[in-house]
Amino acid sequence: MHHFSVWVPRRHKVSVVVDGSTYPMQGPSSHGFWTADVEKAVHGSDYAFLLDDDPNPYPDPRSFWQPKDVHSFSRVLDHRNFAWTDEKFRAVPLPSAVVYEMHVGTFTPGGTLDSAIERLDYLCELGITHVELLPIASYEGNFSWGYDGVAPYAPDETVGGPDAVKRFVDACHSKGLAVILDVVYNHFGPAGNYTGQFGPYYTEKHKTPWGAAINFEEGGSDEVRRYFIDNALMWLRDYHFDGLRLDATHELIDRSALHFLEQLSREVEDLSASVGRCLVLIAENDLNDPRVVTSREANGYGMDAQWSDDFHHALFSLLANEQIGYFRDFGEIGQLAHTLKHVFLYDGRYSQYRQHSHGRQVLNLSYHKYLGFIQNHDQIGNRAKGERLEMIVGMRKAKLAAGVVFTAPFVPMIFMGEEWAADTPWMYFADFEAPELRKAVSEGRKKDFAHFGFGDDVPDPEDPQTFESSKLKWAELDEPKHHEMLRWYRDLIHLRRKTLSLNLGDMHRMDVEHSEESRWIRTDRGEIRTCMNFAETATAFALPPGSELLLSSAEAPDREPGGVVVPPLSMAVYRMPARPVTVEPPQ
Amino acid sequence: MHHFSVWVPRRHKVSVVVDGSTYPMQGPSSHGFWTADVEKAVHGSDYAFLLDDDPNPYPDPRSFWQPKDVHSFSRVLDHRNFAWTDEKFRAVPLPSAVVYEMHVGTFTPGGTLDSAIERLDYLCELGITHVELLPIASYEGNFSWGYDGVAPYAPDETVGGPDAVKRFVDACHSKGLAVILDVVYNHFGPAGNYTGQFGPYYTEKHKTPWGAAINFEEGGSDEVRRYFIDNALMWLRDYHFDGLRLDATHELIDRSALHFLEQLSREVEDLSASVGRCLVLIAENDLNDPRVVTSREANGYGMDAQWSDDFHHALFSLLANEQIGYFRDFGEIGQLAHTLKHVFLYDGRYSQYRQHSHGRQVLNLSYHKYLGFIQNHDQIGNRAKGERLEMIVGMRKAKLAAGVVFTAPFVPMIFMGEEWAADTPWMYFADFEAPELRKAVSEGRKKDFAHFGFGDDVPDPEDPQTFESSKLKWAELDEPKHHEMLRWYRDLIHLRRKTLSLNLGDMHRMDVEHSEESRWIRTDRGEIRTCMNFAETATAFALPPGSELLLSSAEAPDREPGGVVVPPLSMAVYRMPARPVTVEPPQ
Repeated sequence: MHHFSVWVPRRHKVSVVVDGSTYPMQGPSSHGFWTADVEKAVHGSDYAFLLDDDPNPYPDPRSFWQPKDVHSFSRVLDHRNFAWTDEKFRAVPLPSAVVYEMHVGTFTPGGTLDSAIERLDYLCELGITHVELLPIASYEGNFSWGYDGVAPYAPDETVGGPDAVKRFVDACHSKGLAVILDVVYNHFGPAGNYTGQFGPYYTEKHKTPWGAAINFEEGGSDEVRRYFIDNALMWLRDYHFDGLRLDATHELIDRSALHFLEQLSREVEDLSASVGRCLVLIAENDLNDPRVVTSREANGYGMDAQWSDDFHHALFSLLANEQIGYFRDFGEIGQLAHTLKHVFLYDGRYSQYRQHSHGRQVLNLSYHKYLGFIQNHDQIGNRAKGERLEMIVGMRKAKLAAGVVFTAPFVPMIFMGEEWAADTPWMYFADFEAPELRKAVSEGRKKDFAHFGFGDDVPDPEDPQTFESSKLKWAELDEPKHHEMLRWYRDLIHLRRKTLSLNLGDMHRMDVEHSEESRWIRTDRGEIRTCMNFAETATAFALPPGSELLLSSAEAPDREPGGVVVPPLSMAVYRMPARPVTVEPPQ
Repeated sequence: MHHFSVWVPRRHKVSVVVDGSTYPMQGPSSHGFWTADVEKAVHGSDYAFLLDDDPNPYPDPRSFWQPKDVHSFSRVLDHRNFAWTDEKFRAVPLPSAVVYEMHVGTFTPGGTLDSAIERLDYLCELGITHVELLPIASYEGNFSWGYDGVAPYAPDETVGGPDAVKRFVDACHSKGLAVILDVVYNHFGPAGNYTGQFGPYYTEKHKTPWGAAINFEEGGSDEVRRYFIDNALMWLRDYHFDGLRLDATHELIDRSALHFLEQLSREVEDLSASVGRCLVLIAENDLNDPRVVTSREANGYGMDAQWSDDFHHALFSLLANEQIGYFRDFGEIGQLAHTLKHVFLYDGRYSQYRQHSHGRQVLNLSYHKYLGFIQNHDQIGNRAKGERLEMIVGMRKAKLAAGVVFTAPFVPMIFMGEEWAADTPWMYFADFEAPELRKAVSEGRKKDFAHFGFGDDVPDPEDPQTFESSKLKWAELDEPKHHEMLRWYRDLIHLRRKTLSLNLGDMHRMDVEHSEESRWIRTDRGEIRTCMNFAETATAFALPPGSELLLSSAEAPDREPGGVVVPPLSMAVYRMPARPVTVEPPQ
């Protein structure tokens, strides 16, 4: 027996078709739910809904399983059927984390979660604590970044389907790795989205980059909010994920007195208490608003952390000298220094790119509320040809960048393959079916890059070869260049993990100095001094006598009286001799 | 000499025409401003702007003076030309206020600010402390509620123009009356709005009931925000207003890290310090979100107060038994009792009318953050025929309602004429010029009310008679009924002003009990017990021996052992004998 329930507030008749037989549903309840208990429906039964007199059977918006594709019947899934072995696992807390962003389809040649399991030992050895999967909710076609999902509750079959997700999480946990899932609550993909047939999932009151906004404010929004919050709870409870990364939360447009994000963080905290595991919420957010990661007690939304874009942009623009798009707002040494100390560069100041003042100062928060990175899926994949950092700036600067990320106070994150300066690009790809949508996506991509001077050489996202050539080539690891970079990342990660001062979240414990003209930044955190030289020439840094070199991204600096000379475009980390502990007063 | 400055960020050529001569302007500056110093332009010079090759001269979006109409030339105005006499005036603080909402055009037969001045002694005697003017920013036509303004900086000529505003405020101040101005920052009226010619004042990202939202978020929004904030500062600084009432602030759609309302409250606080006067901001807001009146230090928007709609709806629906529109969500005794104790009834609970959960609990705020009323311009004027409360429910219930308002813990507000149960309706009226707009407004009004069973008898807003018949008839005051009501209001106001306990803002000092079945509410605040009987029968209330009747809205209650019997549909206020002062712990 299976109990079917579906929210269809504005229809007059709803039925469920189960393995070929049709059963009328009872409803609607006062809030628009229809229900039916079907005796013969069990784990594995295929079903769909009939709405009014529309002859098309629609898949369940809350489908746990879309075995064929996003347009076809849903399948009943009983989460109790999986034999978990991870009861003893507890995740490292987020402030101590090293996050590894992974796209399953291109992580291994096989492109599935099961083949990804074979690489987990490698991640452990690297020092990773958290794997963050790009979205895996079902989408149309055989490959996708995942942001075009239309069945948020159903893991896509191309990565292995529901059971593969559980096997993957269980395997990660058995190795001590936590797993975070990227979820998309700001839109549905353009193909295979049938939610509009069921209820008011959208509102025309607000527009997002993807069209009408999700309805968080209007009639029916309680149920829409539940739809996404229950989804979050499902991943955390039934799939044992340790956290969620929430895509573009600034497009969750919600004027309600209780913002969706706050409601979500309340409920995840309760679930966390109930399952006895630490569960985290990490937001992507473009507003530079400290409210996102401020506690609910202080009238914030209570997210555990947020991606720190200004830090990325400031660092990238120094290395790549790019001044297009949002990089217009960056390019100065002092700006990177500012983000290292204050998180947001745009903390209320005017942005040329945005043409308005942007953001707000971060005050009384820990650095651990922010993730720092120099590469991620967007920063690589949204380039015309999906070039990774090292392809753009070379090994020397790429190593400098990694050194900055891992000595910065933010929770570090890397994108798969970054750690060995993979030679494979990671491009934008999508596999829509309808010819007009394929064409629109392909031509839209070309058009996006045409005014940056690109022509027909922009790879076609709909070409399977674009997907194939984005797959990591693990054999690269045998080559000296890649091995050198991997060793650098491993050294940085291990240094960070064993050095208390590199893990301090207290903003008052971070001293940052810089010179715009001489292009250097020096940070002190406890006994750790980091010397970053962005100049094309060697640069002297002061150091107390007895300081010990821990790591350097290039040739070891020469000692000189009172300090060292750090080679061009490199950084070095020192442990200064013990000094009396002083607690600095808040400024 | 006059310095002209105008924000026109996306044009290539801007000129200013002054008294018939054209002067090219210099610009644009990096933020899109154009300027010109014109020697012969002085106070009283007429001017307009020419944009690119468009031959139409456009009035200044920041025009201080539109002597002819909203479509014609602006006039230079030097605010220093007025001789203020109010340097000694200081407003009563908002928590002690009694607010009187006034529409200038219908307050007196003359319909001007100068004729309103003649009635100020009356208001003083009544006990009013704050006059709140409906919007006076210039609009098209000869009469308007004021919410269709298109020149926010220019007081409309039909109420007397800029100097009349200063005369009015100065006269109020000379009598000890503070003046609040209603301002509309969420839209421009449909006729005479030329701001779109000048810059990106709107965004298509969000829709409001009036169309595209004001641009508080996107490119150019710094200047749009300044446009409205400078407007607020102008009224407070140059016209000596003591505060502003902000129309429908939930439609100021702003995801920025610094919300427009918070930016405004910051700047008004600074102006307040600079001018040495107490300046207040009162928001209308439909979100039931305590954040609006929460201090900025606690991550709120820092408004001084907000209109308390749930209290109105709960009280009105008890008296009028109306269950249409938002009154569907009200109608129970316990709901009114809840608003008396907790401000918002919809504090996160589900609203049938809205079809979603609404609002949030008010915690750790003073009652003085909320204004309480049983009538206002919207509640009267948005009825099909503009009926005032007494016309709907009769004298007895109207007196009961006023008694509830003035013994409630909120800052009380009344709508002009309410205090004598005026027999004149106050209807919706507007005087647009274009025939198609007139027709749309007239027919839209009929259509709005058609599904409530109204036919062609809905008064035509565009008919001058609708405006004329909405004017107060002061001769009514000689009639016994009106005199009786006026005395009741005066007694209530005077009782409140002289009774400390009726002015307590502390939510912990308010005890509320009620019976749904017997339809009564009893509140205790300090030594004051208020007995409200909403039943058609007399109802017994307990009272300690020695209690003194202060006021009753109908026949004086009969004493009986242990208490009193309050007559049907009436209320009575008692002072209980002194008891030891106890400070109750927070709950």
